[in-house]
Amino acid sequence: MASVFGKNIQVSVWGQSHSPAIGVTVDGLPAGEQIDEEVLQEFLNRRAPGQADYATTRREEDRPEFLSGLVDHVTCGAPLTAMIRNTNTRPQHYENLRDVPRPGHGDYAIGQKFHGFQDVSGGGHTSGRMTAPICIAGGICMQILSRRGVEVRAHIAKLGGVTDTVPDYCAQTPLPKLPAGRFPTFSEEAGKNMHKAILAAKRQADSIGGVIECIVTGVPAGVGDPMFDGIENRMAAALFGIPAVKGVEFGNGFAAAELLGSQNNDPFVVKDGQIKTETNRHGGILGGVTSGMPIVFRVAIKPTPSIGQPQRSVRLSTKAEEELVIKGRHDPCIVPRAVPVVEAVAAIVLLDFLRK
Amino acid sequence: MASVFGKNIQVSVWGQSHSPAIGVTVDGLPAGEQIDEEVLQEFLNRRAPGQADYATTRREEDRPEFLSGLVDHVTCGAPLTAMIRNTNTRPQHYENLRDVPRPGHGDYAIGQKFHGFQDVSGGGHTSGRMTAPICIAGGICMQILSRRGVEVRAHIAKLGGVTDTVPDYCAQTPLPKLPAGRFPTFSEEAGKNMHKAILAAKRQADSIGGVIECIVTGVPAGVGDPMFDGIENRMAAALFGIPAVKGVEFGNGFAAAELLGSQNNDPFVVKDGQIKTETNRHGGILGGVTSGMPIVFRVAIKPTPSIGQPQRSVRLSTKAEEELVIKGRHDPCIVPRAVPVVEAVAAIVLLDFLRK
Amino acid sequence: MASVFGKNIQVSVWGQSHSPAIGVTVDGLPAGEQIDEEVLQEFLNRRAPGQADYATTRREEDRPEFLSGLVDHVTCGAPLTAMIRNTNTRPQHYENLRDVPRPGHGDYAIGQKFHGFQDVSGGGHTSGRMTAPICIAGGICMQILSRRGVEVRAHIAKLGGVTDTVPDYCAQTPLPKLPAGRFPTFSEEAGKNMHKAILAAKRQADSIGGVIECIVTGVPAGVGDPMFDGIENRMAAALFGIPAVKGVEFGNGFAAAELLGSQNNDPFVVKDGQIKTETNRHGGILGGVTSGMPIVFRVAIKPTPSIGQPQRSVRLSTKAEEELVIKGRHDPCIVPRAVPVVEAVAAIVLLDFLRK
Amino acid sequence: MASVFGKNIQVSVWGQSHSPAIGVTVDGLPAGEQIDEEVLQEFLNRRAPGQADYATTRREEDRPEFLSGLVDHVTCGAPLTAMIRNTNTRPQHYENLRDVPRPGHGDYAIGQKFHGFQDVSGGGHTSGRMTAPICIAGGICMQILSRRGVEVRAHIAKLGGVTDTVPDYCAQTPLPKLPAGRFPTFSEEAGKNMHKAILAAKRQADSIGGVIECIVTGVPAGVGDPMFDGIENRMAAALFGIPAVKGVEFGNGFAAAELLGSQNNDPFVVKDGQIKTETNRHGGILGGVTSGMPIVFRVAIKPTPSIGQPQRSVRLSTKAEEELVIKGRHDPCIVPRAVPVVEAVAAIVLLDFLRK
Repeated sequence: MASVFGKNIQVSVWGQSHSPAIGVTVDGLPAGEQIDEEVLQEFLNRRAPGQADYATTRREEDRPEFLSGLVDHVTCGAPLTAMIRNTNTRPQHYENLRDVPRPGHGDYAIGQKFHGFQDVSGGGHTSGRMTAPICIAGGICMQILSRRGVEVRAHIAKLGGVTDTVPDYCAQTPLPKLPAGRFPTFSEEAGKNMHKAILAAKRQADSIGGVIECIVTGVPAGVGDPMFDGIENRMAAALFGIPAVKGVEFGNGFAAAELLGSQNNDPFVVKDGQIKTETNRHGGILGGVTSGMPIVFRVAIKPTPSIGQPQRSVRLSTKAEEELVIKGRHDPCIVPRAVPVVEAVAAIVLLDFLRK
Repeated sequence: MASVFGKNIQVSVWGQSHSPAIGVTVDGLPAGEQIDEEVLQEFLNRRAPGQADYATTRREEDRPEFLSGLVDHVTCGAPLTAMIRNTNTRPQHYENLRDVPRPGHGDYAIGQKFHGFQDVSGGGHTSGRMTAPICIAGGICMQILSRRGVEVRAHIAKLGGVTDTVPDYCAQTPLPKLPAGRFPTFSEEAGKNMHKAILAAKRQADSIGGVIECIVTGVPAGVGDPMFDGIENRMAAALFGIPAVKGVEFGNGFAAAELLGSQNNDPFVVKDGQIKTETNRHGGILGGVTSGMPIVFRVAIKPTPSIGQPQRSVRLSTKAEEELVIKGRHDPCIVPRAVPVVEAVAAIVLLDFLRK
Repeated sequence: MASVFGKNIQVSVWGQSHSPAIGVTVDGLPAGEQIDEEVLQEFLNRRAPGQADYATTRREEDRPEFLSGLVDHVTCGAPLTAMIRNTNTRPQHYENLRDVPRPGHGDYAIGQKFHGFQDVSGGGHTSGRMTAPICIAGGICMQILSRRGVEVRAHIAKLGGVTDTVPDYCAQTPLPKLPAGRFPTFSEEAGKNMHKAILAAKRQADSIGGVIECIVTGVPAGVGDPMFDGIENRMAAALFGIPAVKGVEFGNGFAAAELLGSQNNDPFVVKDGQIKTETNRHGGILGGVTSGMPIVFRVAIKPTPSIGQPQRSVRLSTKAEEELVIKGRHDPCIVPRAVPVVEAVAAIVLLDFLRK
Repeated sequence: MASVFGKNIQVSVWGQSHSPAIGVTVDGLPAGEQIDEEVLQEFLNRRAPGQADYATTRREEDRPEFLSGLVDHVTCGAPLTAMIRNTNTRPQHYENLRDVPRPGHGDYAIGQKFHGFQDVSGGGHTSGRMTAPICIAGGICMQILSRRGVEVRAHIAKLGGVTDTVPDYCAQTPLPKLPAGRFPTFSEEAGKNMHKAILAAKRQADSIGGVIECIVTGVPAGVGDPMFDGIENRMAAALFGIPAVKGVEFGNGFAAAELLGSQNNDPFVVKDGQIKTETNRHGGILGGVTSGMPIVFRVAIKPTPSIGQPQRSVRLSTKAEEELVIKGRHDPCIVPRAVPVVEAVAAIVLLDFLRK
């Protein structure tokens, strides 16, 4: 199924950019978990377009209405459904895209799949707007994980040639939370420079990509399954569900491919009476199963394909090449807003594993 | 489940490095497909250790016996099971690893999961040997795909600082086949230099990683599902099931994260009356769905953690740190042998999608 | 997952009897299918409590609002979500049931599962009200099936000792539709007598069960999978998701267990140049796969456990036995209203198989 | 997939009646479980044709070879595979069945599905012989369940008008084991009379069906999921995978459909300080979730369609009706041999639920 994932916790994401509503159903949450809607809202606000000059100017309050699954803010074991109304729907400046696909977008491929019946308006079901329901599900999972000692933190690791680093990939204490409104880097300096790179792209009516890194602390050793159902398998599968993700790597990832074994292996050591690895090049996962070290992974986000520059495309009905100028409001860089989405997906996948 | 994957075609891989046999069951293959066992054997030989000086000296003839699913070499719709006997089983020099885990291996993590009951001998179920049954399944799927015009080709794209390139990522004709016995690069020159890098690592009792790239031609546009069940999602999930894979990227992948939208978008054009993209930075997949262009992805293979150098580990029973020297026969570089495994996984996943 | 089923078409049912809304998400519907909301509403009205004297007096207009998945009443390939607001929520006379479970209901078992956090109000997620979203999904599938020549018809086969029969289990033409407002039997006489049996039970503050039979015409031969993924497997699994179903049988079913092979086998014959069976004791399914004959199955519906008579129960907090009198509005017989629910489930399962 | 089932424990059954071997792979078994092969063999012998005059005269020793998943008879967390060689393969007297399907068998339906490529020899993949690997998987699960206090017992409840009864459906102590070689009823008298009915059918070159009942003790309350993923849903789906099963009912089952609520509800009581129900008409499951009472279900087994009498069929290639006489060795009644198969399936499904 296109829009369902998970095994013990199953998340079903529904809605289109301009349908009456978007939402999510989460089946399999443990019963008896209090959901703090204020904390959830703060999390959702990190994704919301807000006033940042690097985001779309579309304004929408992503305030979910809970339709099922809660009794007095506590999960009751039944599927939880939350909905956000789309107040800003059915504009007319998208219909052209059914016949003239945008380069880098799914318009053409999805049109072939659905024989032209797909909802093109605002990107339809594959719009970045669909990450709002993912964040609702993920934000709820983060609250539940947090009570079990598991904390999920992502940041922009690389953007426009600027790098943000994590102080210690072996530390078992969670990294600081990055609040809504703040550019999502640990180093403010790095954030400022990334921000500049985004504005530079914006000025050229262009867009820019980046790399998001996620660190999860508190997952015990022995979680996951070897071979095809490990943390890496299911995490990667879910992460590629975030629009614009084109790569996923764990621990040293692609850099490991350029190393020798003696440079990439992590020696086992005893620290405070616990078995640890001295370094964390493996990113907390060995053989598909957690080692007890922080889980570390990175996702590559391509530059959003919606750019203001004229582009070459083809009119499908006539097979004539033509120039396309994309209208509408678009983010010059979706990476900052994708940071909480990566956290959300990580939280859903890990709670799913821990539910077993 | 650890060792089962697929939706319409379900592959179940079983066996341990030193169990009586290893094998695979493939459920859901179309009926009426002739399986050429000679062609399959040639494919399996590409993975076999052979005589190459960069591979383990363990000798085993990976000749499968077909136990079910065929009638006179033709698929009959029932699950196909093939088995390879392990002739070389239960040596004694592994038992130590239950208590002193090898750095970079799954020993510790998997031991935590299975409470010490895991089969440690020869790597057990997570041994690289388990890629033989994956290749049986994949080799069969490749024959079936080939009849539908779909060809899968992988090569080593990068190893030890050396790069192998593909002439044209937009060409719809399949790349040449890399036969057994040949170092799996398209450029012989690149292959020679990679080979040298492997031998250099070997001389230092070390190991080396690399990047494998796979190109699939002939898949029509419109295959896959948006969001969580697209080609990228399921392909990545399966690829991370190959031991030592630490990263997966499609098209431009992580490089896209450093580009502007105008540099990463692929203009649509008309070629020979067909709608194509001029470039193929998207790797044949847009919005999780195929665009009709060749599918291109890369996987990062870490250096095999089994190295001859002494390494630091911990004796679990006493929590005392100790030096570990790994015995047994090991590949200084598993990347060449992993090339057909990547092809196999790609073939299984794509046939699964095309079966729908 | 409790509330998700299906493979190629995945149905996720959400809501509780007294949550803000109930609804359903259907992922995997073919794109380009027109949904006639009037026809759907007529179908839903067959399930609605209405004014019948055999149904609860709770009044609710089950009019779904479509939140996603449609563009101008046509499916667009994205998940379809429909919602019905609960206007009549959170009454106070259920809280007692958390501590004093109703005999024959899931209160106790589900309370054990969810550690007392389940929503008890109005039956929560296991309320018969949750069959409304099932009917939305099923009614949509019926419209799509109908365009493919497949028609689903159910009726009450047995109730209170009265039997309704189908003229011909071999006929390929669909049975007549049973409209909303009509007692769902083909014979009006049988319907009248069943109705009387229900009113007799009602007068004693009791309830009564019955058997629903479903006949599906137009499914071609060769659909389904042998062994564990056939029509019977998946249909039965889904049917047991309807509250109060305690048995499922296909063709001759339990009666076959009392027959000789010569009495139960269906001879093959040629009719109008087509291969058929002369009789249809097998209910259209042989070896898990359709034979091309009408699919015939029956489900046993137990008498609704909510009866007006005092019953013996236990106060969980004190482990003291006590008499329970159930308040609220209840159907003396849910069988008539369950008839369209059985059709809905059958339609979902069959469209799922035909989507492959 | 045709031949895979389960969620946390996944069973993949492979082989055909006359393929080189048949077998089963079980993924997800807990690690560290000792498997007693003698006890397993005794269980398998209950299914084996043996010397009984009511079974086929085909002789095969169903002695499994374990290929993977065990280290010194103890599960190691890797998939367990067991194989039985077919010594008695590829006879010639089946080929006719590809063109002239046997009434009541899957020949025609499956032939339509697999376009005539199915293995017809000895029934192929849908042969009753495939219940041997199911019993291997189930016998292993029974040993593991037994250590957790869960015992599974089935018997023939009804055959040829004769009834066998269970002394007490509320007792938490397991029923006696029915050893290999004994007719599987609790009452010897009932067994003798059923045996007579079978021999009477045999004398007429006919076959006879029956009802198998299964009682499971020791499953705690709160296991299973409401709605579509409860015990009933998954148990029924798996049971319909046993060849010849045409009906499944839980507790009172179809009889409940003829009762009033006051007759079918089970009062809650306190016994020995525990909450129980006084009667067990619900068969241990309420709302899809276990109540802590013994689980009780029945399956209807149709008379085996292979009978010695001439039957009417059609030659598919010419569409001419012709008389068919089935050759080969066949059971006049498969019900006694199906009793351990029902136990096996029940054990697999329950261990799957308890693994969560």
